[in-house]
Amino acid sequence: MKHLPHKTIARLSQYRRALLLCLAKGKTHIFSHEIAKIQHITAVQVRRDIMLIGYTGTLRKGYNVKELIDLIGNIIDSEKRIDVCVVGTGNLGKAIINYFKGRRTKLTITAGFDIDPKKIGKKITGVPIYNVADIKKIIQEKNIRIGVMTVPGEQTTEICDMLVDAGIKGILNFTPKPVNVPHGVFLEEYDMITSLEKVAFFVKTQNEL
Amino acid sequence: MKHLPHKTIARLSQYRRALLLCLAKGKTHIFSHEIAKIQHITAVQVRRDIMLIGYTGTLRKGYNVKELIDLIGNIIDSEKRIDVCVVGTGNLGKAIINYFKGRRTKLTITAGFDIDPKKIGKKITGVPIYNVADIKKIIQEKNIRIGVMTVPGEQTTEICDMLVDAGIKGILNFTPKPVNVPHGVFLEEYDMITSLEKVAFFVKTQNEL
Repeated sequence: MKHLPHKTIARLSQYRRALLLCLAKGKTHIFSHEIAKIQHITAVQVRRDIMLIGYTGTLRKGYNVKELIDLIGNIIDSEKRIDVCVVGTGNLGKAIINYFKGRRTKLTITAGFDIDPKKIGKKITGVPIYNVADIKKIIQEKNIRIGVMTVPGEQTTEICDMLVDAGIKGILNFTPKPVNVPHGVFLEEYDMITSLEKVAFFVKTQNEL
Repeated sequence: MKHLPHKTIARLSQYRRALLLCLAKGKTHIFSHEIAKIQHITAVQVRRDIMLIGYTGTLRKGYNVKELIDLIGNIIDSEKRIDVCVVGTGNLGKAIINYFKGRRTKLTITAGFDIDPKKIGKKITGVPIYNVADIKKIIQEKNIRIGVMTVPGEQTTEICDMLVDAGIKGILNFTPKPVNVPHGVFLEEYDMITSLEKVAFFVKTQNEL
């Protein structure tokens, strides 16, 4: 399972999200075409991904929702807890801390970092906020392995270097500036402006038709 | 240009973001392999995308940064302003309003919506916040065509239906719940948990090696 493509991992994570919502509504079984509709992809893609992780449903009832949730969890979740930190506790940093609170038991935000003296020493939804100057010490003490960056663009490179130097193995970059990381560190970047520009392009071309 | 693939549009938007940073540093020309390195993709991909929009650089100096920024703008930006609203002005909504402020002249957030009486009637970074109950009226008065959803999961479906009913043509869904939209409305969904789970999967598998 180590060599599952990144895109498959992302889709499995999305299937689980959809399945958890179905389970909450009391749905026990689901067909591939139902998952496909929720995810806006083809049923063939769904079946291929689920076959890749060695699971099959029945022709009559489809997949067992609970079993599939557990199986996806076995594959994508870590057995041990993975600690995560958020660097930059402005609106976006706060949103992320609140969003993840209690959502995934194995993936826990255990520290926030900021440079604002008014925030340092306080807590956000129970997560302690530390001084960015102590980033290496705290990351190593708490064995934090993933860093989420929500700092302003001009601080991005410096913070990224500090995270790598502290031994972080995965970085999720939400800042407006792309970064480079050494081999052995996994990087995922997301810029909200790209998503909005995609939507705007569609709206513009629809309008011109 | 109307039929450029969505993924190409997303990459062009990302190239522009990188080019703007280069321009700010005083760089006048750039090679495809330099853009590729910033974006973590291949130079072949970069050249292919830029050829698709009918631009070529010179062998000796590469692409002219300023020209390429303008050309990408001509393609992905609208000539007229496109108004955007944000529904849900919690931390994430506030982060988005602040983030976009003044970044793209043709893409402007002109309204926020919330149900909290303490927020309604106030402004966030100059953007007026209205009552969700008035969503259709305000969207039509202001000719808003894109809606960004940052409400809690349980309100997602209802808000999405309200946006569609009000005549919105593009939706960017940042809530934890997937939605369906009718034909003619463009939907882009992003869930932070998927990105974090991808990073965590890598960190976990690295650890097991």
